[in-house]
Amino acid sequence: MDIATGLGLIAGAIVLVSLILMGGDLGMFLDMHAFIVIGGGAFAATLIRFPLSSIFHGIPIGMKFAFTVRRIGPRDLVDEIANLSDIARKQGPMGLEKVEISDSFLAKGVRYVADGYDADFIRDNLERDRDNFLTHLDEGSKVYRSIGDCAPAFGMIGTLIGMVQMFANMTDPSKLGPYMAVALLATFYGAAVANLFCLPIADKLHVKLLDEEINRTLIIDGVLMMRESKSPALVREMLLTYLPEKHRELVELAPA
Amino acid sequence: MDIATGLGLIAGAIVLVSLILMGGDLGMFLDMHAFIVIGGGAFAATLIRFPLSSIFHGIPIGMKFAFTVRRIGPRDLVDEIANLSDIARKQGPMGLEKVEISDSFLAKGVRYVADGYDADFIRDNLERDRDNFLTHLDEGSKVYRSIGDCAPAFGMIGTLIGMVQMFANMTDPSKLGPYMAVALLATFYGAAVANLFCLPIADKLHVKLLDEEINRTLIIDGVLMMRESKSPALVREMLLTYLPEKHRELVELAPA
Amino acid sequence: MDIATGLGLIAGAIVLVSLILMGGDLGMFLDMHAFIVIGGGAFAATLIRFPLSSIFHGIPIGMKFAFTVRRIGPRDLVDEIANLSDIARKQGPMGLEKVEISDSFLAKGVRYVADGYDADFIRDNLERDRDNFLTHLDEGSKVYRSIGDCAPAFGMIGTLIGMVQMFANMTDPSKLGPYMAVALLATFYGAAVANLFCLPIADKLHVKLLDEEINRTLIIDGVLMMRESKSPALVREMLLTYLPEKHRELVELAPA
Amino acid sequence: MDIATGLGLIAGAIVLVSLILMGGDLGMFLDMHAFIVIGGGAFAATLIRFPLSSIFHGIPIGMKFAFTVRRIGPRDLVDEIANLSDIARKQGPMGLEKVEISDSFLAKGVRYVADGYDADFIRDNLERDRDNFLTHLDEGSKVYRSIGDCAPAFGMIGTLIGMVQMFANMTDPSKLGPYMAVALLATFYGAAVANLFCLPIADKLHVKLLDEEINRTLIIDGVLMMRESKSPALVREMLLTYLPEKHRELVELAPA
Amino acid sequence: MDIATGLGLIAGAIVLVSLILMGGDLGMFLDMHAFIVIGGGAFAATLIRFPLSSIFHGIPIGMKFAFTVRRIGPRDLVDEIANLSDIARKQGPMGLEKVEISDSFLAKGVRYVADGYDADFIRDNLERDRDNFLTHLDEGSKVYRSIGDCAPAFGMIGTLIGMVQMFANMTDPSKLGPYMAVALLATFYGAAVANLFCLPIADKLHVKLLDEEINRTLIIDGVLMMRESKSPALVREMLLTYLPEKHRELVELAPA
Repeated sequence: MDIATGLGLIAGAIVLVSLILMGGDLGMFLDMHAFIVIGGGAFAATLIRFPLSSIFHGIPIGMKFAFTVRRIGPRDLVDEIANLSDIARKQGPMGLEKVEISDSFLAKGVRYVADGYDADFIRDNLERDRDNFLTHLDEGSKVYRSIGDCAPAFGMIGTLIGMVQMFANMTDPSKLGPYMAVALLATFYGAAVANLFCLPIADKLHVKLLDEEINRTLIIDGVLMMRESKSPALVREMLLTYLPEKHRELVELAPA
Repeated sequence: MDIATGLGLIAGAIVLVSLILMGGDLGMFLDMHAFIVIGGGAFAATLIRFPLSSIFHGIPIGMKFAFTVRRIGPRDLVDEIANLSDIARKQGPMGLEKVEISDSFLAKGVRYVADGYDADFIRDNLERDRDNFLTHLDEGSKVYRSIGDCAPAFGMIGTLIGMVQMFANMTDPSKLGPYMAVALLATFYGAAVANLFCLPIADKLHVKLLDEEINRTLIIDGVLMMRESKSPALVREMLLTYLPEKHRELVELAPA
Repeated sequence: MDIATGLGLIAGAIVLVSLILMGGDLGMFLDMHAFIVIGGGAFAATLIRFPLSSIFHGIPIGMKFAFTVRRIGPRDLVDEIANLSDIARKQGPMGLEKVEISDSFLAKGVRYVADGYDADFIRDNLERDRDNFLTHLDEGSKVYRSIGDCAPAFGMIGTLIGMVQMFANMTDPSKLGPYMAVALLATFYGAAVANLFCLPIADKLHVKLLDEEINRTLIIDGVLMMRESKSPALVREMLLTYLPEKHRELVELAPA
Repeated sequence: MDIATGLGLIAGAIVLVSLILMGGDLGMFLDMHAFIVIGGGAFAATLIRFPLSSIFHGIPIGMKFAFTVRRIGPRDLVDEIANLSDIARKQGPMGLEKVEISDSFLAKGVRYVADGYDADFIRDNLERDRDNFLTHLDEGSKVYRSIGDCAPAFGMIGTLIGMVQMFANMTDPSKLGPYMAVALLATFYGAAVANLFCLPIADKLHVKLLDEEINRTLIIDGVLMMRESKSPALVREMLLTYLPEKHRELVELAPA
Repeated sequence: MDIATGLGLIAGAIVLVSLILMGGDLGMFLDMHAFIVIGGGAFAATLIRFPLSSIFHGIPIGMKFAFTVRRIGPRDLVDEIANLSDIARKQGPMGLEKVEISDSFLAKGVRYVADGYDADFIRDNLERDRDNFLTHLDEGSKVYRSIGDCAPAFGMIGTLIGMVQMFANMTDPSKLGPYMAVALLATFYGAAVANLFCLPIADKLHVKLLDEEINRTLIIDGVLMMRESKSPALVREMLLTYLPEKHRELVELAPA
């Protein structure tokens, strides 16, 4: 569970709600017009812009991964793979069958080794799995970014519709206020959806994409070394070269 | 038929129409001024900006391909080419004459093989066809993007003309409203045309361009291997390397 | 004559004039203030921004080439050069003297061959001529783009000056209208000059720059092959490799 | 102490305060709504956008390094390392133990040499330290830039909330003024925070990042040459090649 | 003296002053608030953003070189160096001592040759001089661009402060005008400073940077060939290769 994403969304909601409550009631800000133009407009433009498969895979995968976080960091991953190599070396591949593995992608790879598949099959399958996953995550990031980019424009479209109607129907200038309030709500929805939700989520998914690329490549190579019964020390040393400096450093400092 | 594009356009129209009807009648939003400034301005700027051939080829090809989708995915294409190779191998090139082929570009290549043209002629003709098609699709994408980029500016120009006339003729401030409404319509048209039509279409055409480049290159190489009576298994294996990971993966999963 | 540029400019003018006439008279939109701030501001900023030589060469060359178009396409150019090679081969260089040539750059090269200059001299002179021309065309494109980029800002400056004077002198709110109308004209001029004139012209010049680079390089190599009395068939074949696929294709289709 | 950063922040505050005091009292500009929407919105979006570790390391490291400056320039650093090499050569590594060193990163390296660690260990540790530091500084720069980029949008959101409430509650148009004033404060806070604080700090951190990369790489190589008892003249000559021309020049001019 | 820069600044001032005088008196546009917020804000942000050395060197060097222009073009420079080579060859290095040289950088190089320094010393010193100069010119360009980029934002900040005070103090709506006029002046100052001064100057410095890089590199190589008593014809031929095509062409055309 990536609590930062959740906390951020809650913090954003608290900011908006408390600001609204300081100046009146919340109901004033719930507006069907604004909801239709932002939600409907973003839906329509996204339908045109992306292939259906990008939308169906990208939005849920993006939403899921924005809120989840690897239970184990890359250094612990290296440790776990080194341990598994030790087991595979001492007990043979069959020994891996009983081990419980936290990461589902690593678990899949270990099962392949335990089942005795050859190296090419394992590499092909895991690489396809990794690339497929990264493609969907990238599509998710792009869909959220595109919605974040066009939401303010839909807000403006909604406000323009409201203002045209307001000016056209204006007979009594004293009623201009409430109409104007409703018209501005669309701009407000667009700006809030873009800046407090879509754009930060797209940025976070982009960071996760880069991290998962390293993690999964590391797992694939680790699993293949495990299959060849390489020594745990060698496995650890070679996998550590995958880690960017910042992770190596944190590792180094931790035991110090 | 790419239903996503059609659905998206319909959804966008529904959003706009329902918003408008919720606050008044539709006629209020039909404005000759706004139509002239957005349509005419975009037409004039596009005429200056692009060579005539880009405009005449780009707009219709873009419109056509935004709404159409390959009936068969790249994997089925590989299967179809492998089958055709099998026929060509067993019955000779003449056997290909009776086969019905769904894709027109593939059909053209197969006809060349059946007619016994030499490899250089086939490669040259198909590559020219592919590059020509990709150039037009790219021009189409650029024309739609350029219209989407300048439509909001023409909306602003229309609104400015309306506001200048409104302020200049203003003797009775109570009539300011309806004038203002008309002036704002140009901005509304510009924002709607750009964000609900031109920019999403331009993005979709760009994605299709990338896909078609892979598909047609794959077909060209497949046809040439067919001509050389390569074995279907070899053809399939070599063509699969053209597929980006995501398509290979989908293929792999499908039969699983 | 590049009729698209002329048609586009006329279409843009018609759009603006008809919109203006639909709401009042044209005189209301002729404003000395707006003209001074857009014209003067763009003139001042361009003087500071570019060396004098870029301005003096860039603006007229840009204007000239935005409206002219090669009388002959690249394919006809190849045909013409092949014909000239034939003449040069059969009648010797002297035979070229009487030939009428439509393109002035090609004519210059052919004259050099007829006059018997050596290959190095011809290459040096034509390449210098080509690079000089491309440099000026590029400067022209940049000057128009820079004016298009800053014109809206000068429009805003003009509107701000007008609004400051309007608010400062405002004693009778009923007179606010006409002042406001004049102030908005500067913004209108800036947006119209940028979007209907400068930016499209800059884009067109950029496209022409890319085309002329190919055409003139093709001519230089053709002239040099002509001097060496290469066979017309060889000249044609080698020059065709200069054409980007789209032109080759159009060529191929034309006689078909 | 990087006095420019401090002076700039103080100058910015003086500008704002003096402008405010020239037109009224300061209290009018202290607004809880504006503070909540800018501070809270930036906090929420940053939480979603960055991993927690980037936020916890990036903000304080950024703040610290925006205000601190190396006590010694790169040229003095080269001199200091050359002197230390001289000591190491004449008195052996033990002689380095008593030397006082101003820069903490250099001090760490010298301590390793004095303690007799081997070259690989020293290089690995110092490089990890350097990369870790640069990563955090880069994260800091990115966090400040992202806040600077979204603060104006949160200002607009705050202003929209205020305006909606103002228009909705508007019964007496004469009270519109004070409400409007409060609504505009959010936009003001957003623009001031972005342009007078976050964006300049992000730019300065980026410059420091480039400088520190050179300084620390120079120190690492200097320490390793020290360990190998290279002659001070050779050390100086080789390290000078790390300096970009501008520093070399300043060095050269100083003694002249 | 680069008269284009001076003329452009004067033209810009004339445009602003004549526009202002057409609608009232000049004093109305002299506003302490606007001056403080643009000048002070740009000063504060620049202090934070750049190292002090960039500011102290960049602003004056930028200002100086925006207004100066090489008295001699690159072609005359080549001629002058060829003449000097002739003197050096016939009279020996001592003969160079009495020659008057217009360009200070060339003069420095010639003095080194006359004084008999060795080639390495001359190259090192001149290259350092060149790089130092180019670095400062680049810093100058960046400082002006950064001020031009943030000046409009400070204008908006000033306008917001003015509007908040205006709305807060508003008891008599009829006084809204003059307050509004003062508030808008800050936006006007920001837009004028950016578009008529800072951004064009930054662009011009960038062009000069590219030119000076060629000129000074040409001088360095010319001076070194002079020291080796190369023949003037060889010097001229080799230096001409430094000139970009446009200068070579202009040279070629001039004597024709």
